[in-house]
Amino acid sequence: MDNKLNLKFKIWLEKDGKAFGNGPYELLNGVKERGSLRKAAQDMNMSYSLAHKLIKSLEERLGYPLIERTVGGSGGGGSSLTQDAEHLMQNYHAFIQEAETSLDRLFQEYFVKKDGSQ
Amino acid sequence: MDNKLNLKFKIWLEKDGKAFGNGPYELLNGVKERGSLRKAAQDMNMSYSLAHKLIKSLEERLGYPLIERTVGGSGGGGSSLTQDAEHLMQNYHAFIQEAETSLDRLFQEYFVKKDGSQ
Repeated sequence: MDNKLNLKFKIWLEKDGKAFGNGPYELLNGVKERGSLRKAAQDMNMSYSLAHKLIKSLEERLGYPLIERTVGGSGGGGSSLTQDAEHLMQNYHAFIQEAETSLDRLFQEYFVKKDGSQ
Repeated sequence: MDNKLNLKFKIWLEKDGKAFGNGPYELLNGVKERGSLRKAAQDMNMSYSLAHKLIKSLEERLGYPLIERTVGGSGGGGSSLTQDAEHLMQNYHAFIQEAETSLDRLFQEYFVKKDGSQ
């Protein structure tokens, strides 16, 4: 139960269909941290094949690769992010942070400060 | 087909559940223009009973009446907005307009100006 009026929103990017949003951001972040698409997918309770399809579809829409295979190492290879993916994640993260701040400020202005009943 | 990267978003208000958003705004606007909840619902291809339930549920969450019956007149009475509903609509409309402007500006900043490839 929450008896205060609250702001809710969803923000995502499209390019001939859904191109990027919180889910893809979280998946790419997992690849970055775990060095593996398989482990990143597991962490999100997503099958590897679905995660793989999602990445392929995003890459097609965005027009550049997001993930590259890493060969060898103790784990026998894995996945890492491309520079374009790192760049996209940085921009997306900063964009979402600023968007949230901005929407919260407007919400306060129109629905909290103005209206004593909230 | 749209080959440019586009921003998409949904914004709504909650208070112990969904309390206001574009659908309710459109319905109230219809009541204001048509002077009738029945006609406003018809314009949105919504059944009168669903529209009535929606209004009741919003009123319960918001804690004030949105619609009042008007008696008599050439059409034999209808519905009009309460002052609280007019006030909510004005605030919501101004809030959404500013939110859109703000999000579009941020989107341009992070995904259009910065990135020549878009």
